[in-house]
Amino acid sequence: MKRKGILVVVSGFSGAGKGTLMKKMIQDYDNYALSVSMTTRSPREGEENGREYFFVSKEEFEEKIRQDGLVEYASYCDHYYGTPKEYVETQLAAGKDVILEIEIQGALKIKEKFQTALLLFVMPPTAAELKRRLVGRGTETEEVIAKRLRRAGEEAQGMEHYDYIVINDDLDECTKELHSMICAAHHTPRRSGELMENMKRELDQLVKGEK
Amino acid sequence: MKRKGILVVVSGFSGAGKGTLMKKMIQDYDNYALSVSMTTRSPREGEENGREYFFVSKEEFEEKIRQDGLVEYASYCDHYYGTPKEYVETQLAAGKDVILEIEIQGALKIKEKFQTALLLFVMPPTAAELKRRLVGRGTETEEVIAKRLRRAGEEAQGMEHYDYIVINDDLDECTKELHSMICAAHHTPRRSGELMENMKRELDQLVKGEK
Repeated sequence: MKRKGILVVVSGFSGAGKGTLMKKMIQDYDNYALSVSMTTRSPREGEENGREYFFVSKEEFEEKIRQDGLVEYASYCDHYYGTPKEYVETQLAAGKDVILEIEIQGALKIKEKFQTALLLFVMPPTAAELKRRLVGRGTETEEVIAKRLRRAGEEAQGMEHYDYIVINDDLDECTKELHSMICAAHHTPRRSGELMENMKRELDQLVKGEK
Repeated sequence: MKRKGILVVVSGFSGAGKGTLMKKMIQDYDNYALSVSMTTRSPREGEENGREYFFVSKEEFEEKIRQDGLVEYASYCDHYYGTPKEYVETQLAAGKDVILEIEIQGALKIKEKFQTALLLFVMPPTAAELKRRLVGRGTETEEVIAKRLRRAGEEAQGMEHYDYIVINDDLDECTKELHSMICAAHHTPRRSGELMENMKRELDQLVKGEK
């Protein structure tokens, strides 16, 4: 029986280390595919089309919406952000677990559409460590740091909607832990419907054969 | 923060290899404690008091029930079977994950009492393999094998109430998989209440400090 892929949604505070973690997942294991979002905002310095985002015009994005070509989408600060459907579906069908980084509202929308999606919330070991990481980047103003902390406080309210809370203390450890969670998720009854049905049918046939 | 133990309930068809699997879990990892059931039935050849079961009289068992000293109990074929509460609670408080082998009715009772219990259902890769194992023991009559297959068919109806379905194909692989599932389970929101509350409180304090 071919294993079907799981849509793995990763959320977490800015500064939790999601990006690095996801890159390492792709690097260390061969069962993952990374979904790249589509946006109408302009690329920042160093960002590449197709790597950080697919950068498209507002017209192209709205055409995607009309074609029902997005798993979910939202708009922030006058820009659209969304998840192209085709890549996700192709990879899932090929048995890949598709990892998708997305904030909490999008994550909950996906959970509604994909009952078998796995929602992971990544956070640093303590709030003090989160602040240290945000400050440590050295690239952000006091104001941006304060804003991110407030945003983290808001996002923390939604943690209980996730399947797992992942503490990113040590990158290697955390990568292994994430991988274990995703492997385990393949064995929940919700994701093992076919397996359970086969077993029930086979047992039924054997029992009849014994009579 | 000290990690609290999880009560791990293992069920599965007779012939699924639960016993061997649990022994290997205890052997390979140091975070597990095995709960031993109490029964009023007589020990069979080779069974040892305190290893397979605690063998007690009907009066002793009923006294335990009156003292509320059992996590759950049931009676089959005129004999009582139950799980002594004290051992389970002591080990959980010490941070051990307590493994308990029990059939489906008992498992569901435990799930009602212990919201954070983890229910695992072990099965062989196919029904044909299950039959092969039952026959292969060479110790059972045709009639007993037929009865166990019928019983497996009945138990299969309850699989979807479990948290995970575990395929016991290769013992080493399956042991690792079980261990991963239990490790992952420690990170569900249901079992991370304290961690989430701490993070929310700390973030709240930091945000206030920034103002």
